[in-house]
Amino acid sequence: MKKFNLLAEPEKQEIIITHIYDAPRELVWKTYTDPKLRPQWWGPENVETTVEKMDVRTGGEYRVTQHTPNGIEVTFHGVYHEILASERIVQTEEFEGMPGHVVLEIIIFEDFEGKTKVTDTSITPSVEDRDLIISTGMEEGVIESDKRFNKLLKELQKKS
Amino acid sequence: MKKFNLLAEPEKQEIIITHIYDAPRELVWKTYTDPKLRPQWWGPENVETTVEKMDVRTGGEYRVTQHTPNGIEVTFHGVYHEILASERIVQTEEFEGMPGHVVLEIIIFEDFEGKTKVTDTSITPSVEDRDLIISTGMEEGVIESDKRFNKLLKELQKKS
Repeated sequence: MKKFNLLAEPEKQEIIITHIYDAPRELVWKTYTDPKLRPQWWGPENVETTVEKMDVRTGGEYRVTQHTPNGIEVTFHGVYHEILASERIVQTEEFEGMPGHVVLEIIIFEDFEGKTKVTDTSITPSVEDRDLIISTGMEEGVIESDKRFNKLLKELQKKS
Repeated sequence: MKKFNLLAEPEKQEIIITHIYDAPRELVWKTYTDPKLRPQWWGPENVETTVEKMDVRTGGEYRVTQHTPNGIEVTFHGVYHEILASERIVQTEEFEGMPGHVVLEIIIFEDFEGKTKVTDTSITPSVEDRDLIISTGMEEGVIESDKRFNKLLKELQKKS
């Protein structure tokens, strides 16, 4: 199985991204959900991330901004429908540059052959929304995040 | 235009329900979002509805239970991603009898030829989930609610 995969089948309203991380599930969960760690892996390296709010609990809200080197601000916000530690996140996500186009995101954390598999499914309001999100260069951003997340996991494992 | 319509196209992950109500938009909004009024119109008449939580604001949560005459409890819960008074609700919805199958629901309130049009779009995690929801007799429930909602609107308009 590949370490990273993005699946977006024609005419479907979903994007399915899978990651395989060589780290225990609890550490993957902590790295993913810790507001202090988020700026260390989310988005490309030359982008600065500010976590304005990230209240990781069922019913909590989040708002996170990426500041690009050319001064553009890219902000996402949403609510956590469900937080089940080390297992599942169900959240909404709205890119403020595309207001009203809310995505339902389901992120599953599983043990997988001694590693951890994270399956991130984004359900979009329409096929057009889905294709628009992909056309913004989403895959490149996710690949960059995946690399940085792996690097951060290694650093955290060395420390512990 | 019909007063009520349910659209679920083959192979799509969505259900689109439209209602036309002969009442001002603000009254339709109030009737829809008032926790005290919810038991008076939601679901069939022989079902008793208990609103355990209904915090109608962005980031708020809700949990509502229907008690059927034969003692079955049907509970729904979710979070409000966005509440824009008299205009839009974006929320998640999970039927606790089908845990994990979370729906993204977008409800738009618009003026329409002197009446109010409410468009309620449910986006499901899969086509299978969508079809399962429809197979539970959803349409009958929505038709019953629509009748009771219209009746309640008339009563509220007489009072005011």
